[in-house]
Amino acid sequence: SQRKKIAIIGGDGIGPSVTHEAKLLLEIYRDKAGLPLDLWELDLGADRYLRDGVTFPKEIQIAVQRECAAVLLGALGDPRVPGLEHARDILFGMRFGFDLYANVRPVKALSDRLVPLKGRGAKDVDMVVFRENTEGVYVGMGGQFKRGTPDEVAINEDLNTRKGVERIVRAAFEFAKRTGKKRVCMADKSNAMRHAHELWLRVFDEVRREYPEIESRHLYVDALCLLMIQDPSQFEVLVMNNLFGDIVTDLGAALQGGLGMAASANVHASDPTRVAMFEPVHGSAPPLAGKDIANPFAAILTVGMMLTHLGWPDEETRIERVVAAAIEEKACTVDVGGTLGTRAAAAWVRERVAKEL
Amino acid sequence: SQRKKIAIIGGDGIGPSVTHEAKLLLEIYRDKAGLPLDLWELDLGADRYLRDGVTFPKEIQIAVQRECAAVLLGALGDPRVPGLEHARDILFGMRFGFDLYANVRPVKALSDRLVPLKGRGAKDVDMVVFRENTEGVYVGMGGQFKRGTPDEVAINEDLNTRKGVERIVRAAFEFAKRTGKKRVCMADKSNAMRHAHELWLRVFDEVRREYPEIESRHLYVDALCLLMIQDPSQFEVLVMNNLFGDIVTDLGAALQGGLGMAASANVHASDPTRVAMFEPVHGSAPPLAGKDIANPFAAILTVGMMLTHLGWPDEETRIERVVAAAIEEKACTVDVGGTLGTRAAAAWVRERVAKEL
Ligand SMILES: CC(C)[C@H](C(=O)O)[C@@H](O)C(=O)O
Ligand SMILES: CC(C)[C@H](C(=O)O)[C@@H](O)C(=O)O
Repeated sequence: SQRKKIAIIGGDGIGPSVTHEAKLLLEIYRDKAGLPLDLWELDLGADRYLRDGVTFPKEIQIAVQRECAAVLLGALGDPRVPGLEHARDILFGMRFGFDLYANVRPVKALSDRLVPLKGRGAKDVDMVVFRENTEGVYVGMGGQFKRGTPDEVAINEDLNTRKGVERIVRAAFEFAKRTGKKRVCMADKSNAMRHAHELWLRVFDEVRREYPEIESRHLYVDALCLLMIQDPSQFEVLVMNNLFGDIVTDLGAALQGGLGMAASANVHASDPTRVAMFEPVHGSAPPLAGKDIANPFAAILTVGMMLTHLGWPDEETRIERVVAAAIEEKACTVDVGGTLGTRAAAAWVRERVAKEL
Repeated sequence: SQRKKIAIIGGDGIGPSVTHEAKLLLEIYRDKAGLPLDLWELDLGADRYLRDGVTFPKEIQIAVQRECAAVLLGALGDPRVPGLEHARDILFGMRFGFDLYANVRPVKALSDRLVPLKGRGAKDVDMVVFRENTEGVYVGMGGQFKRGTPDEVAINEDLNTRKGVERIVRAAFEFAKRTGKKRVCMADKSNAMRHAHELWLRVFDEVRREYPEIESRHLYVDALCLLMIQDPSQFEVLVMNNLFGDIVTDLGAALQGGLGMAASANVHASDPTRVAMFEPVHGSAPPLAGKDIANPFAAILTVGMMLTHLGWPDEETRIERVVAAAIEEKACTVDVGGTLGTRAAAAWVRERVAKEL
């Protein structure tokens, strides 16, 4: 069928409420614009885990992978589940289990007002980070030796493969080429991590030769963080390992107005027909839950990324424009300088979008 | 003897010129203030390495460790030595070889003008980072398997020991206690690095109980980077592993006015009678070398940290105050908004200091 099935996992904390707002937007696209979307809500998260021990069952994984075009995931994490087992099973179950090797995180400011840097505005903050999403320190390799004794040794390994590094670097260059970006910068710590990151340096140097029209640059990740503050306008596309991508995109969120504005896509970049997963970058922020104050725009912008992935890129542009207007008119939550609650801010955006459709 | 011997290594690129200015300041302290300092210049760095293959000879290491109270190190790194062997031998030869487990890096803005954040000033940027300096990914454990083939695997290990983690966490709390700071924050990535960083979490939780008067806090390193931009005023003392300390202090440099303002001390914190090493955080910046434009203030502030270490903390306060005055009066280099060259900016500071002595 031509219909696109979308699995929706509300998550924990503020997750369910912002995801609900995002779902209502998808319903408008389905009901008003007639997009062929089927929404499938999954009862997964801390509540479910505490109820019956279920995290991310194999049969659901298989069904999602077979039937769905996309997953919309709310934030996971609940103080009642200290070890975060369920969160990891679900989040990494998708990132690793579905081999979604590119975690694509736009660092784009939608309003001058959101940029915290003196003398800088929205035009200076417009980059996309390609974060490797299936390797690095996230694979869990390592262990603890003589745990709890004075001689304890604890190790995590940063695992990198030729295949893994090459495909994410290539994804960054392909994206740059496709979208007309002129610059790709790879960040690593090869001056200290001479085994793992020498591979990054070598592969980057090989792949970039295939894209002579794109300016390529290498930075140590520490220098990158400094330069992102000193002059973010110099960056267009960034590519780096899992851990550095995690750090740099939170730093990037600070340039966009906070985590309430940061969207992300987890994709198997070389084959867009495979299921992809979309999540706001923010966490579940348990203290904010149930208070109607969480910013729904990250989840809404994430829907925009999903619509591009599903073949409707104009809708991402539209959503971004409307969210930018909401920020401009202060029709937004407190974290981005407004006075509205979660529901009202999301409704404002939805109504504008609906009117245009 | 009561005299303090100080080894001086100019380094590469801009290193020799800024280190020279720092040395002239030490000479004023020796000649004008009568501090019992003996300065010992060592011919080490890229030039020496290219001349006769010497990086950091064992007999020099031993002599420094036996005879010196401190080392002043300029930046290392030269395009003629692509693998940076000499830089690593010298830098890590001291950090690891002298067991200088605390890399103490103040992130302190000396002028409102240097803080790049809207609505923030110097009073908001005043923290000290305790970076673990002898473990982590810097130990070089790991390797490459099937190098150069499509099946290549490359690994670096993040090595952490109970001893290593405990002593740096303790150093941070001891520093807070000694200097009247109220807050210590530890940053790790224990939600992803469950072996290595669970140790950090556990040790931090143990050690902080010994300092009930100090507020302790744990953050994931990604969140820390975000919060450092959103509200740096909340941080006083930070402690983290080698890699994160590297990244966070470059980010911190952006809040201080750039790497030209960032000083550091490498110390065996539990025994201040052991030799310590002092270096500006910046690199050798080869393109700037020999042009009289590099900012000498990081090297000069590093001398301040050294003087505190040697027992003259009032001199660090003085140097900081005079450098702040130089910034205010634009008696500084271009990177921090002045018009002076390296030599003139350093001379301005030296003359003011000399006048006060
Ligand atoms: C929750 C955590 C494991 C996760 C990560 O580190 O990937 C989060 O920080 C993110 O960026 O999506
Ligand atoms: C040159 C490099 C190996 C070094 C490090 O990573 O420690 C530098 O970045 C620093 O911060 O002193």
